[in-house]
Amino acid sequence: MREERDTKPRTAALLGGGVIGGGWAARLLLAGVDVRLYDPASDAEQGVIATLDRARRAWRRLTMAPLPPEGSLTVTDSISEAVSDAELVQESAPEREALKRELLSQASHAALSTAIIASSTSGLLPSRLSTDMDGPERFLVAHPFNPVYFLPLVELVGGPQTATSTIEHAASIYRSLGMRPLVVRREIDGFIADRLLEALWREALWLVNDDVATVEEVDDAITYGAGLRWAAMGIFLTYRLGGGEGGMRHFLEQFGPALALPWTHLTDVPTLDQALLEKLVTQSDAQADGRSADELMRVRDDCLVAILQGLRGQSFGAGEALARYERALIGDSAAHLRDATDDAGGTLRLHQVIVPTDWIDYNGHLTESRYLDVLAESTDAFLRLIGIDGDYIADGHSYYTVETHIRHIAEASAGEHLYTETRLLAHDQKRLHLFHEMRRQGDETLLATGEHMLLHVDRTAAATAPAEPAVLASLSAIADTQRELPWPEAAGRVGRRP
Amino acid sequence: MREERDTKPRTAALLGGGVIGGGWAARLLLAGVDVRLYDPASDAEQGVIATLDRARRAWRRLTMAPLPPEGSLTVTDSISEAVSDAELVQESAPEREALKRELLSQASHAALSTAIIASSTSGLLPSRLSTDMDGPERFLVAHPFNPVYFLPLVELVGGPQTATSTIEHAASIYRSLGMRPLVVRREIDGFIADRLLEALWREALWLVNDDVATVEEVDDAITYGAGLRWAAMGIFLTYRLGGGEGGMRHFLEQFGPALALPWTHLTDVPTLDQALLEKLVTQSDAQADGRSADELMRVRDDCLVAILQGLRGQSFGAGEALARYERALIGDSAAHLRDATDDAGGTLRLHQVIVPTDWIDYNGHLTESRYLDVLAESTDAFLRLIGIDGDYIADGHSYYTVETHIRHIAEASAGEHLYTETRLLAHDQKRLHLFHEMRRQGDETLLATGEHMLLHVDRTAAATAPAEPAVLASLSAIADTQRELPWPEAAGRVGRRP
Repeated sequence: MREERDTKPRTAALLGGGVIGGGWAARLLLAGVDVRLYDPASDAEQGVIATLDRARRAWRRLTMAPLPPEGSLTVTDSISEAVSDAELVQESAPEREALKRELLSQASHAALSTAIIASSTSGLLPSRLSTDMDGPERFLVAHPFNPVYFLPLVELVGGPQTATSTIEHAASIYRSLGMRPLVVRREIDGFIADRLLEALWREALWLVNDDVATVEEVDDAITYGAGLRWAAMGIFLTYRLGGGEGGMRHFLEQFGPALALPWTHLTDVPTLDQALLEKLVTQSDAQADGRSADELMRVRDDCLVAILQGLRGQSFGAGEALARYERALIGDSAAHLRDATDDAGGTLRLHQVIVPTDWIDYNGHLTESRYLDVLAESTDAFLRLIGIDGDYIADGHSYYTVETHIRHIAEASAGEHLYTETRLLAHDQKRLHLFHEMRRQGDETLLATGEHMLLHVDRTAAATAPAEPAVLASLSAIADTQRELPWPEAAGRVGRRP
Repeated sequence: MREERDTKPRTAALLGGGVIGGGWAARLLLAGVDVRLYDPASDAEQGVIATLDRARRAWRRLTMAPLPPEGSLTVTDSISEAVSDAELVQESAPEREALKRELLSQASHAALSTAIIASSTSGLLPSRLSTDMDGPERFLVAHPFNPVYFLPLVELVGGPQTATSTIEHAASIYRSLGMRPLVVRREIDGFIADRLLEALWREALWLVNDDVATVEEVDDAITYGAGLRWAAMGIFLTYRLGGGEGGMRHFLEQFGPALALPWTHLTDVPTLDQALLEKLVTQSDAQADGRSADELMRVRDDCLVAILQGLRGQSFGAGEALARYERALIGDSAAHLRDATDDAGGTLRLHQVIVPTDWIDYNGHLTESRYLDVLAESTDAFLRLIGIDGDYIADGHSYYTVETHIRHIAEASAGEHLYTETRLLAHDQKRLHLFHEMRRQGDETLLATGEHMLLHVDRTAAATAPAEPAVLASLSAIADTQRELPWPEAAGRVGRRP
């Protein structure tokens, strides 16, 4: 099933470079889009660069797919300069309606007539924000979530004047950045997500206000329980499972009556007076325990990396959005592999892997047997390269490993990119002598070496047998390209040699 | 930092074996606790066994730490039979106060005076539930979250009559099962978590009721956005980061005023009439897309496995609860192994495994890297035997494998029972030289041999260091019992020797 290609803009204009605008800048730049930033604050550029640093680090840990060359960041002195050739204009100013209306109006006069103009507002109505705009049919709300460079959700909300084609074009643009657009059916204050978040936030404030729980206890009540589910499944799917095979109907029949007995402070709104504010600030400082915001943001990003990678392995929820983006980034994976082997010269780079979280042992490092997993996969890749494919095996022939010698040299951690370089040390009609070096991408640290003796077998005769001529020809060709490479210092230590 | 040992009960009584009771049964049995189940429903046992199957599968994927031998499940005909020798009585009947009061009253008359008696209620007050009990000082609410066998959170709520020691003892029991107790400071309807969940649930119902969004769109608004954060960080810590280095104070000053402009349906409660019920059921069925509850529960569990493993790698939130439980499991297993091998002379049989179907490669046999899996597990078991337990590792010491030599001799198939016999070939203060023979039970065929060189390291100093005297004493004792065994024919082929 082919996925339709999304249209990535070349240039985007950002109005506002705070937490949200900076997050947009990082997402766009890492997707290869040039960014023109307008922000009257003198420290805006510095903040954007700090956010970009965090985003780069997080994305490098997240995916092995090749990210495109980064876009360029230009800070402009005026709105018109920022928007002049932008295909996307994204406004992320503070949540004051008058201010946003003014910015959007100015941008609409200077922007291309074909540009998409979007506001990052978390709840203001698009029909009001576009009041003073030229061409309001180009305008919509595109509401992202913090960290914008990482969370896939973006709510798209049009007003009565927004063209259907604007929503479709915008959805394609945001998908091209790895995001998951959620089109909100009609204008409503707070859209969908922030209405839900507001309900939770108010109840959380009451719990602290009434001294039922501290800030940290409220957070623990989420992160050790329902929060773990919400990363994978939403409210309704979770409760459906609470109904067992009877599903949602059974759940509602069982728990519906409880709606008549509200526990929450539904009819009341907490007053954020000085006493409550001080309590919240003091408890929040205690929870942060001296860690800076930047430090906590890195922890958050590392957790999100691990969660997204985990969900990608399940092809579920946000993991599917990530997998989709990676497919787009990789394009033709065969071509990608060919490039990789060409670049490696005589040595073959046939296998790479990001260390999954479930390969980590109680020492916090790559568990022993997974070293052989990586080495054995490299052997398999080598066998595929010389023509040992499904048909060959179905005909009753294969290579079997008879002896393995591993040197464990350094540790690896979850999320690290590992690759192997493979040497064909020797071969004859029946035997193969392979040597892999397993390294970490980035600092190229040698983590392990694997030396492997394989025998070619005829499984129907249950005996060793010479390999097919085509396979032997491939082996000779590879041996030729590697003739000049020095003998690996660590090789030749297995007991039996060819 | 030493962790205090928690007290795991030998026997627990469960009153009610539905979704929650079944989840308790699975968690307790997998932690090695014997369970006595009382449930008048004829299909209760069947449901518990299905839940146990799911839980077993999920835990096997979750951790490489050795789970204890499973407890035994006994279905009883009466409450008194169930509770007679139980150290923990856990009531998980439907949420009807009169029913729970009656069950708890009966249980309190038959239970040990030292037993902890707990209710799984998600919001009823302990002071009311314990009205008719003998010895209400033993009673508390212990509110778990679905799936109970997997989510760590359990809210502990005492009433005015609950003894402080009851709360402390219960917290220790639930921690011993790998859970994270959250002590709620005082009685309140809905405790902490369900007040938060209720607020979210009501707003979600309104969004569907008013056709702002479908069930699936509401869920997407969570799982592609804030839900990913909530698996790692709660409401307050997340918003603290929204305030940048200004923290909670800056966040509140910026967004506090929005509290006066509520978006949510705070003042109203949705009526769950037939029309709304049908809408929810129809949309939920569409979202499930033909997948059974069991199928979706496995997806959920696999996602939770990935999320928990990811968070463990970050030592954050629920990942820290998992890491703590793993350390305890390793310690328990070491004690268990020492008991089992006290009188053993000669070769040590420390590890056995039934070959799972997903260990089989395209040749139809045990895949290459799983040979090292079996050998490495045997090395781990040997290390536990000589005292390398959770505390030892937490103190920064461990043995690391530096060299491995495997001879692959014969094939193995799915379902076969394999075991290893372990020899300590040599050791000194820093080095270990181990040799495993891996055999098939039945015909005792030798499948592989593994020869392993390990170094003792001080991880804080990132250098080799002598092992603790107690460990060296264990090694000497084992060497003595193996003195008469002949040198293995295949050993001594690794390059470097001690």
